[in-house]
Amino acid sequence: MRFDAISVIPSVFESYVDASILGRAKARGIFEFHAHDLRTWTHDRHRTVDDAPFGGGQGMLMKPEPIFEAVEAVSAMAEQKPHVIFFSPCGKPFSQRDAERLSNCDRILFVCGRYEGMDERVYTLADEVISLGDYVLTGGELAAMTVTDAVVRLLPGALGDAQSPVDESFAGSLLEYEQYTRPATYRDMDVPEILLSGDHGAIDCWRRENAIKRTALMRPDLLEGADLTPREEAIARDAIDGHEHGEEGC
Amino acid sequence: MRFDAISVIPSVFESYVDASILGRAKARGIFEFHAHDLRTWTHDRHRTVDDAPFGGGQGMLMKPEPIFEAVEAVSAMAEQKPHVIFFSPCGKPFSQRDAERLSNCDRILFVCGRYEGMDERVYTLADEVISLGDYVLTGGELAAMTVTDAVVRLLPGALGDAQSPVDESFAGSLLEYEQYTRPATYRDMDVPEILLSGDHGAIDCWRRENAIKRTALMRPDLLEGADLTPREEAIARDAIDGHEHGEEGC
Repeated sequence: MRFDAISVIPSVFESYVDASILGRAKARGIFEFHAHDLRTWTHDRHRTVDDAPFGGGQGMLMKPEPIFEAVEAVSAMAEQKPHVIFFSPCGKPFSQRDAERLSNCDRILFVCGRYEGMDERVYTLADEVISLGDYVLTGGELAAMTVTDAVVRLLPGALGDAQSPVDESFAGSLLEYEQYTRPATYRDMDVPEILLSGDHGAIDCWRRENAIKRTALMRPDLLEGADLTPREEAIARDAIDGHEHGEEGC
Repeated sequence: MRFDAISVIPSVFESYVDASILGRAKARGIFEFHAHDLRTWTHDRHRTVDDAPFGGGQGMLMKPEPIFEAVEAVSAMAEQKPHVIFFSPCGKPFSQRDAERLSNCDRILFVCGRYEGMDERVYTLADEVISLGDYVLTGGELAAMTVTDAVVRLLPGALGDAQSPVDESFAGSLLEYEQYTRPATYRDMDVPEILLSGDHGAIDCWRRENAIKRTALMRPDLLEGADLTPREEAIARDAIDGHEHGEEGC
């Protein structure tokens, strides 16, 4: 899979995509990442990418011309047409389902904005506008790295263990169950006894219930998409009730 | 403001926090960022930070001991006690309101997980567990950079123009209005005429209505928190109705 990113700070990507899990996947040829300096597609001596907004107001906006030219030029750098992604708080909130969908693309091109925003016309270039969440950042670069990370780890072979992506939060619309490793007691905190029992049927059952309870307490909104049996639905309701009683008691 | 991050890949932060708006704010002393290698607090020859989960299962978990020791040692590196943040899909979804709240901290310490997850006991160290959104990443490093970015840009003087953070998406629970810069016509796309009129009262009115319409169409969930007049509520309803009719016509 090929990723391209257009940015005024193209140097910020390398240390992340070359480190750790992504770095190993990149070294094994599972993905390529090419960062491009937007200023390459300016035509004035100061390599200007921004201008004042029409109608007044503070701050500067990214001009349309360099972005149009950059997207066209970078698109032509490989045979596959890229799926073009812009980032904006006005975009569609990104979710694990989007990461799964995007992991089927051959090629993704990110356009990373900076400054106060972009001339609205540039969004006609977008196949998709993504919001990473309801917060404002100085630019789209971290968003591009985040989508790259979420997508790459789903590509076959990217994680050491081929089965790893299945068992985790959101894969089945539940948060992941609590996990513990050695030592069995650390600073007076004990690992739940059942996990030391060696009874794998009982452990699987505890983990499923633990995931349901956690999701019910911390993210009840996710339960709607979960495939629960009637007994599991009762466990979720009891967790929510128990929690509320606990809070009333405080 | 002082940020610390504990990570097994401490080298990934520097190129981002030293670039562009953050880099200038850091150079002006508005914030400090110190990344620490978790492996400093291991005691075996292989500097092991992970171990197999109790109860079986694929993947490795981060061990509790290095994390406890690291948080204690890094906390002691400055006089102020840090606000300790962990990241997990099970955490509280991060929003602009959290960025505003955190911008009042003197000091934040991020603990960035990797691998399949962390021993559950480490979360007793957390003042706060944050989720960046409903997607899974290979680690907490991008989350730490994202929170740093969202918080630093709100610190006094971090953005060139002192008023910049006020006028944007989420500040008043509405998405930002469309913005345009020169040229007035680009590839047959015209800037809305009113923005060229010089009539600032009419422009302000257009912008407010544009922000309401966009929010109504793209993120109607945000309208509940917006402070709308009865007339503005009607504009929002009309936008939603018009959009639905438009789609029916397709």
